[in-house]
Amino acid sequence: MAGVSAAAAGTGVREKGRLDLALFFSDAPCRVAAFYTTNRLNGGHIPLCRDNLAKSKGLAQALLVNSGVANCSVGPRGKRDSAKLARETARLLGIPAERALAASTGLIGVPLPVDRMAKKLPALAKKLKKSDSAAAARAIMTTDTVPKMVAVEVSSPGGKYRIAGVAKGSGMIAPNLATQFGFVFTDADVALPALRGISRRCVDGSFNRIAVDGDTSPNDTVFVFANGASGVKVPQRGAGAKLFEDALHHVCRRLAVELVRDGEGATKLIEITVDGAATAADARRAARAVGLSPLVKTAVFGEDPNWGRIITALGYSGAAFDPDRARIEVDGTVVFDKGKSRGLPSGLMKGKEVGIKANLRAGKASAKFWTCDFSHDYVKINAEYTT
Amino acid sequence: MAGVSAAAAGTGVREKGRLDLALFFSDAPCRVAAFYTTNRLNGGHIPLCRDNLAKSKGLAQALLVNSGVANCSVGPRGKRDSAKLARETARLLGIPAERALAASTGLIGVPLPVDRMAKKLPALAKKLKKSDSAAAARAIMTTDTVPKMVAVEVSSPGGKYRIAGVAKGSGMIAPNLATQFGFVFTDADVALPALRGISRRCVDGSFNRIAVDGDTSPNDTVFVFANGASGVKVPQRGAGAKLFEDALHHVCRRLAVELVRDGEGATKLIEITVDGAATAADARRAARAVGLSPLVKTAVFGEDPNWGRIITALGYSGAAFDPDRARIEVDGTVVFDKGKSRGLPSGLMKGKEVGIKANLRAGKASAKFWTCDFSHDYVKINAEYTT
Repeated sequence: MAGVSAAAAGTGVREKGRLDLALFFSDAPCRVAAFYTTNRLNGGHIPLCRDNLAKSKGLAQALLVNSGVANCSVGPRGKRDSAKLARETARLLGIPAERALAASTGLIGVPLPVDRMAKKLPALAKKLKKSDSAAAARAIMTTDTVPKMVAVEVSSPGGKYRIAGVAKGSGMIAPNLATQFGFVFTDADVALPALRGISRRCVDGSFNRIAVDGDTSPNDTVFVFANGASGVKVPQRGAGAKLFEDALHHVCRRLAVELVRDGEGATKLIEITVDGAATAADARRAARAVGLSPLVKTAVFGEDPNWGRIITALGYSGAAFDPDRARIEVDGTVVFDKGKSRGLPSGLMKGKEVGIKANLRAGKASAKFWTCDFSHDYVKINAEYTT
Repeated sequence: MAGVSAAAAGTGVREKGRLDLALFFSDAPCRVAAFYTTNRLNGGHIPLCRDNLAKSKGLAQALLVNSGVANCSVGPRGKRDSAKLARETARLLGIPAERALAASTGLIGVPLPVDRMAKKLPALAKKLKKSDSAAAARAIMTTDTVPKMVAVEVSSPGGKYRIAGVAKGSGMIAPNLATQFGFVFTDADVALPALRGISRRCVDGSFNRIAVDGDTSPNDTVFVFANGASGVKVPQRGAGAKLFEDALHHVCRRLAVELVRDGEGATKLIEITVDGAATAADARRAARAVGLSPLVKTAVFGEDPNWGRIITALGYSGAAFDPDRARIEVDGTVVFDKGKSRGLPSGLMKGKEVGIKANLRAGKASAKFWTCDFSHDYVKINAEYTT
């Protein structure tokens, strides 16, 4: 990615030798679209980022991310500690203080190890010369088992530009504006209002359409950075804007889907498609209810195409439809149609990816949602997480 | 209970010898307050009960309940099959057809075994002479491990009357008007409008305040029957009405709490109390969010007093409050106050009953909610349920 570099370090807060601190840096100022959790409880980095982006009129160049400690529910020091580290990062990189952002993920209620982190900053800043985005993607992980990175190159009539992103998160994931961390960079030249509008739609169709457990984290943060380094201008509207939006949507969706594929204890990725809904809101509601149902998720884990649980979740979703007209497909096979079972052929839900499709036959709206199955290991991971 | 009898039989639809058919009968017509699921999908017995209670102006004498087959999502035959069995029950008992109700619970998508059930009805009706409510409470169970029965005797200035109930349900439980089955009988003489108003408040404070998994079943049904056989009149308002409401509330709450104590895979009962909410709706919302959070429920299973997950759930509940002013207690010990951890003493969450208390410090409203922990066995039970 032209003009963007990344580096990682370990502060020793977690297991010895584990990377837990990442720095992303853009040589040129980036326009930023930012999305935060809808939880009333906010990690300390969120007010700091809001303040800095307000002061900088939406520009940023650096992002410091730590994992292991969420810097959440620690009182007023939360924002102060994030601000201190961001300021120090800006100083080392020689950029205005308000152009450095921060993000924290990990245990709630534990203060940031500010001194240990600050001590690592000079080395981290130096490492940017040999950019290592794979190490940075690893450093932001908590219970994730694999790092998540997606990159595309777009050939537009005006020239080539790139979009690349990293994401993390495998528990406390529910669709509420922004889910967990997603940091996306592009060297396309996009005006800030267009970047914000396009990014909002892309986040809504990706990070807001996934769930692992229905819990919305207080630290959820998605940033889309555009530094214009490719020199390729994205127009405000028309085919060029559409091309950029499609590419950004693709990157966000791929990252979001990778989050649930790696959901805590997950053995299967589930894609839920609702068609024929009366309104777009109904389609989202219906797909979300199926994706959040513990009974559907345990049934998929048991490879039991129990459509009774699917029609039940659709029934309580709040979407307007007549269950006696609806149709449900599992892995492409119709299992329920017009109020009646169509029998349960064997061999369904056996793969690593399971498709559930419902046609409500109440209109023309559609929505997709992604989740993972609910296994013994989800309980194991979360019963043994802390203390 | 004066004038009320119960009996049970096995149709052989489930394991050999297992009771799966229950009949409740009142010699005198009962006034009935009825509450059904809010799921858009309805089991076949629900439209039948609605019709019969409309025709009978709220009176009923018999209730036939089967477990194993939900008679749901089977097309128009669902209501027809329930109606046929209710009619046959009424004929055998010599009561008007519209005074017999029915309720089904079990697998969705399987038609009622009408002939097998009908064949058992004459013997069942005869058994009423030697009433056995314990057998009836057992016959309505699905994944429940123990039957749930509660009875109280009330000494009022006008004389003694009784309130007794049975309930079932341990999965697909979420608070949405009525949850699973609760059948409550009283021999108090209560006018229908008073019975309905009082029962609605009692159901709202009990069956609507519990959750096992957040899924709302399409067959949820609660009936409160009052046959007046004690001859004790409950006044429309004042101390006498209050006494009756308190007693009915007690019975409903005890039954509801027994449902979650026996929740699928449960090892602990969790009572959540929210105080200091700005409004009653906020208090309910906040308590419900904590009670539905898989992260809180797995933490309790792991005996890990992880208050970060509790404040997180309160934060996304939608209740208006400032997390930096709130207080959280676990088993009577303050673990979080005014935005900060108060340390985690050992020995919390070790018992069979766990208490979580949150004071939002935003007002004066309170609410309680009950749930159970989320264990390996919930996943096991639900991954292996059918097919």
